[in-house]
Amino acid sequence: MKIVLASASPRRRELLAALGVEYTVVVSGVEEKVTETEPHRVVEQLSAQKAGDVLRKLLADDPMWDGAEDLLVIGADTIVAFDGRILGKPEDEEDAAKMLRLLSGRTHQVYTGVTLCHHSRGETRQHTFYECTQVHFFPMTREEISWYISTGEPLDKAGAYGIQGLGSRFVRAIEGDYSNVVGLPVAGLYQELKTLKIL
Amino acid sequence: MKIVLASASPRRRELLAALGVEYTVVVSGVEEKVTETEPHRVVEQLSAQKAGDVLRKLLADDPMWDGAEDLLVIGADTIVAFDGRILGKPEDEEDAAKMLRLLSGRTHQVYTGVTLCHHSRGETRQHTFYECTQVHFFPMTREEISWYISTGEPLDKAGAYGIQGLGSRFVRAIEGDYSNVVGLPVAGLYQELKTLKIL
Repeated sequence: MKIVLASASPRRRELLAALGVEYTVVVSGVEEKVTETEPHRVVEQLSAQKAGDVLRKLLADDPMWDGAEDLLVIGADTIVAFDGRILGKPEDEEDAAKMLRLLSGRTHQVYTGVTLCHHSRGETRQHTFYECTQVHFFPMTREEISWYISTGEPLDKAGAYGIQGLGSRFVRAIEGDYSNVVGLPVAGLYQELKTLKIL
Repeated sequence: MKIVLASASPRRRELLAALGVEYTVVVSGVEEKVTETEPHRVVEQLSAQKAGDVLRKLLADDPMWDGAEDLLVIGADTIVAFDGRILGKPEDEEDAAKMLRLLSGRTHQVYTGVTLCHHSRGETRQHTFYECTQVHFFPMTREEISWYISTGEPLDKAGAYGIQGLGSRFVRAIEGDYSNVVGLPVAGLYQELKTLKIL
């Protein structure tokens, strides 16, 4: 079986490598269309768009896959939610500061949606699921927020922090899967692949 | 201030680097003497022995530190506990299988004890704390246990698994600090250093 990760994220690549499977990366060029509003439905929808787009692209490029070899495309999307409200990547430093003030000393949720498109003998089965992890932040002082933004780490990250890097010092605890916060729920994905008899 | 990590663990080095501090590594050669039995007291005791040994070694090697520069030695020790019983590194493959059968489908605890020896103007202040993280495992089949042992990953790890590597697929969820399971509670350490006005 050929496994394709529909994501450019280096963090997702590392996590998928922990599953010990060989895979290639094909990035979706699809324009994201969000019609859902609940966080878990948004990530499910976006992951399905990414995986579906890459599968279509692969089948169009190489019709050999249509029957010759099993193909599994994995799409994923991660967002941060606070009080039901979705926090994307900050627009600028002021926006990042606003987000960090919101997360400081409180609990928020990180959702990752995953879609598996399994193409075999001319047929595609699609399976979508999500995982949610609770993240508890220590209180951050105004100085800490300024310093953290000055490192540049928050600016390209949903919710304005990275749990792996310099942001780790502010994360008091999590409840759930850690890799889900990084961008791909490794254990959940493994269990799904087992259930679907793919792995 | 000169910061010294009293641990050879590459995982601890990476975690300390996430705090953005410069440090050097000096490994303790002390023979571990455990007189405690409760998991959290064991890791506190061992972390204190490591940090204390390295501080003594440094002061003996270079008496200049006695007054010239602030010195902070960080010692840490991590264990896995199930039902109050401590699981060390497995002796062999059969022992690893026994541990994994114990953890499969259940919840266990990971304790890391940390000791900070802060030497300043001829005086040493010592501060010890610990963190505990709950780890929930998916059920593992006999085949999964055999396969995981055959990868070699469990054999040099307390509790016979690594949460970062191939073992991640079996970890359903955690409650608490993730880096604590890896070997050093980064956020807890940062908060302690702040409280002690060291950072």
